[in-house]
Amino acid sequence: MDAQDFRRFGHQLIDWVADYREGLASRPVMSEAQPGDIRAKFPAHPPQKGGRLDEAVAALDRDVLPGITHWNHPSFFAYFPSNTSYASILADLVIAGLGAQGMSWQTSPAATEVEEVVMDWLRQMVGLGEAFTGVIHDTASTATLTALLSARERASNFSQNGRGLQSGDAPLVVYASDQSHSSIEKAALLAGFGRDHLRLIETDDDHAIRLDLLEAAIAEDVRRGLRPCAVIACIGTTGTTAVDPLAKIADIAARFGPWLHVDAAMAGTAMVLPECRDHWTGIERADSLVFNPHKWMGVGFDFSAYYVRDPEHLIRVMSTNPSYLQTKQDGAVKNYRDWHIQLGRRFRALKLWFHLMDVGVEGVQALVRRDLGNAQWFKDRVDAAADWERLAPVPFQTICVRHVPAALKGDEAALKAHNLELARRVNEGGEAYITPALLKGKQILRVSIGATATERAEVQALWVLLNEAAAP
Amino acid sequence: MDAQDFRRFGHQLIDWVADYREGLASRPVMSEAQPGDIRAKFPAHPPQKGGRLDEAVAALDRDVLPGITHWNHPSFFAYFPSNTSYASILADLVIAGLGAQGMSWQTSPAATEVEEVVMDWLRQMVGLGEAFTGVIHDTASTATLTALLSARERASNFSQNGRGLQSGDAPLVVYASDQSHSSIEKAALLAGFGRDHLRLIETDDDHAIRLDLLEAAIAEDVRRGLRPCAVIACIGTTGTTAVDPLAKIADIAARFGPWLHVDAAMAGTAMVLPECRDHWTGIERADSLVFNPHKWMGVGFDFSAYYVRDPEHLIRVMSTNPSYLQTKQDGAVKNYRDWHIQLGRRFRALKLWFHLMDVGVEGVQALVRRDLGNAQWFKDRVDAAADWERLAPVPFQTICVRHVPAALKGDEAALKAHNLELARRVNEGGEAYITPALLKGKQILRVSIGATATERAEVQALWVLLNEAAAP
Repeated sequence: MDAQDFRRFGHQLIDWVADYREGLASRPVMSEAQPGDIRAKFPAHPPQKGGRLDEAVAALDRDVLPGITHWNHPSFFAYFPSNTSYASILADLVIAGLGAQGMSWQTSPAATEVEEVVMDWLRQMVGLGEAFTGVIHDTASTATLTALLSARERASNFSQNGRGLQSGDAPLVVYASDQSHSSIEKAALLAGFGRDHLRLIETDDDHAIRLDLLEAAIAEDVRRGLRPCAVIACIGTTGTTAVDPLAKIADIAARFGPWLHVDAAMAGTAMVLPECRDHWTGIERADSLVFNPHKWMGVGFDFSAYYVRDPEHLIRVMSTNPSYLQTKQDGAVKNYRDWHIQLGRRFRALKLWFHLMDVGVEGVQALVRRDLGNAQWFKDRVDAAADWERLAPVPFQTICVRHVPAALKGDEAALKAHNLELARRVNEGGEAYITPALLKGKQILRVSIGATATERAEVQALWVLLNEAAAP
Repeated sequence: MDAQDFRRFGHQLIDWVADYREGLASRPVMSEAQPGDIRAKFPAHPPQKGGRLDEAVAALDRDVLPGITHWNHPSFFAYFPSNTSYASILADLVIAGLGAQGMSWQTSPAATEVEEVVMDWLRQMVGLGEAFTGVIHDTASTATLTALLSARERASNFSQNGRGLQSGDAPLVVYASDQSHSSIEKAALLAGFGRDHLRLIETDDDHAIRLDLLEAAIAEDVRRGLRPCAVIACIGTTGTTAVDPLAKIADIAARFGPWLHVDAAMAGTAMVLPECRDHWTGIERADSLVFNPHKWMGVGFDFSAYYVRDPEHLIRVMSTNPSYLQTKQDGAVKNYRDWHIQLGRRFRALKLWFHLMDVGVEGVQALVRRDLGNAQWFKDRVDAAADWERLAPVPFQTICVRHVPAALKGDEAALKAHNLELARRVNEGGEAYITPALLKGKQILRVSIGATATERAEVQALWVLLNEAAAP
């Protein structure tokens, strides 16, 4: 393909994306494909001859879209929002077009310096102090693994330079709530702590970590000669967006010494509103934190924001310095390859830059306020309905409910089946997509409000739909 | 921004990308920016009001491009190629436009199934047997870390379910050559083995691992009661594209039991040519391998291909299964979140699909053959020149040389300064970009041929340029 072909296909695909976005509301939210349906549309062997991109473009509508679950659909209420703004799409086009590598400053100075700029903008937007320095990670999973690796090395006096975790020294222990995201358990296992050294602390009725149990667990480990290594506080858990009491966790961390990492993957975006910042009082005492502008904020996946108070510490854990990567500017610049696990890196900063130039801080704030208001509207409907039960506070945009018809009251097995069936009906009906989940043994329906296209009308329609699906 | 604005900006940026690509040859390859130059062009605070994307688009030429090192420039000979084809750029536009999440099959069945299809196509293209199953990772660094974590768990009988690496059991040991990529050392340290348990085995005059020393190291560790955990064989090292003797390493691995991982990050693409496959004889006995279609093949970064012989093993190490991620299809489909470290994932398979539909297998083969031929042409020039020394074989597309003027012969310190200065002149001159590096104490110039736009003319021009720069 030459530049002329690229222009032709490019213009066509820009319009294709715009058409797709404009037509989203008329599509079933969740893909109706059955396992194997999409695969069957593709040949078993690669094309020997080229010049067939027109066929692939034509196949997008016919063979690919039926297999897409539409995360930017106005009635997407599942998981968490994964918004991709128009401006962010355009930035991804530019990023791919430039094909720049940001592993070292020299390999494209703009990739590093625009990232420095926008990560500092973002720091200001969520009310973090100047003590924090940011870097773009791909996902919160990776950022959390990085945090635990940093914690591991600080606690073991940088034993990666020596015997690793295989020292036979007293084991290191990690603490988080039983509502913490699966990525925290995964990171703790990958980092080599072992499940025996991961304490998932019970939570209270609001699903926040119980401080008394956290403190008791740490004290008991210390008494047994183990070493508290890291505590993860969740500001907005995945299940219910519960808020762990950060300031008091920071007190405990200060007393016992572990690294304090904050997982605000979803809710961090809400901190663009000053009225939400009470939820992370104490954040200045964290060693690291992660939140995902690629969720609620509208910056297309992947764009996870990892902030640390001590970059030198991070670099000491993550850096490698082979001769072929050394450049003469190394002392004077950031080489972001030393700030995460990967070596190569895309110029993702462009996505946040384009997005903010398009919507401004005020635009981000307005959408978050709208969604918080929609969540409260939905919560009020649930609370006023006799046959619906709400199982968690609603500090942000997620509402956890279940339908409890009078006839099933008290029969947990029947309630589980009833609500699972309800979710199936809604999701397979195609008009909305919600997430069924278990919360402390109870089958709930998670309603996560926050797709950029979701207005009050869609939230109202969901409430009607849920009640219709719940009707006998 | 509404869809209409998106179309307007989109058409503009498609043309911008095309113009950028068409004008690449006239730009200095390496950015001439000084530290802080780019950052200084941006305000210290984020925009409060939006509606300013036109300013950002205008700033691309003025403020961003001066900070870009052009990896797709026809005279880019540094590091390794990081080619991004036109078709791949278009795919990235579609990926962002869809904004689909591929973490579970249900979250977008097409993202999973198109990946199954194209990863199987790719397997066939490089001559791998059906025993291997592929998954897209972001980078070889992450894939190698995944391999070492899999090795760690297999060797420790899945102790992540228990005491982790902190068991006090006999330590696990990892082996690779002293020419292996920095990501291998990084992965070994992050996985918790510790530097004491990483053996970087000396290499021979061709920079391939010395089998006698590898075998002796393993035997000695076994004798001391340590446990050989993983051996990494490099097919095409980063420094010189040296080829470790894979079949014989597989023999040793079979005898002692460690996991065998193959790092073919750059050279794996060459295996699209049957005449290159002698270089990885024995590959069928590997437990895992990684190579990067985002390097030489033209699929835009990030797209790393990780193949394993036993996916169940990988899944056992990487899976988490919280209720909010469970779907009713789980038994019947792949959930790729369990195939790597991250949870969220982009629909990257589209990039390889579009690229192959555009160029075909034959197109990929033709470019690799062209580049191999250009490398041999360059090698012949070096070998015929009295004042140039070649320091490594040229099995693929990288040539490692230094200039040795008669007056400096034998004076290593002077040769080092001379060649560093030579690289500086070439790179800062802007007409080409090469990588200075150290090879066993000697200052070399790495010439990596393989940018898609690089024809024989640019290789010839580089040879002229190097000789001009070397002239007193």
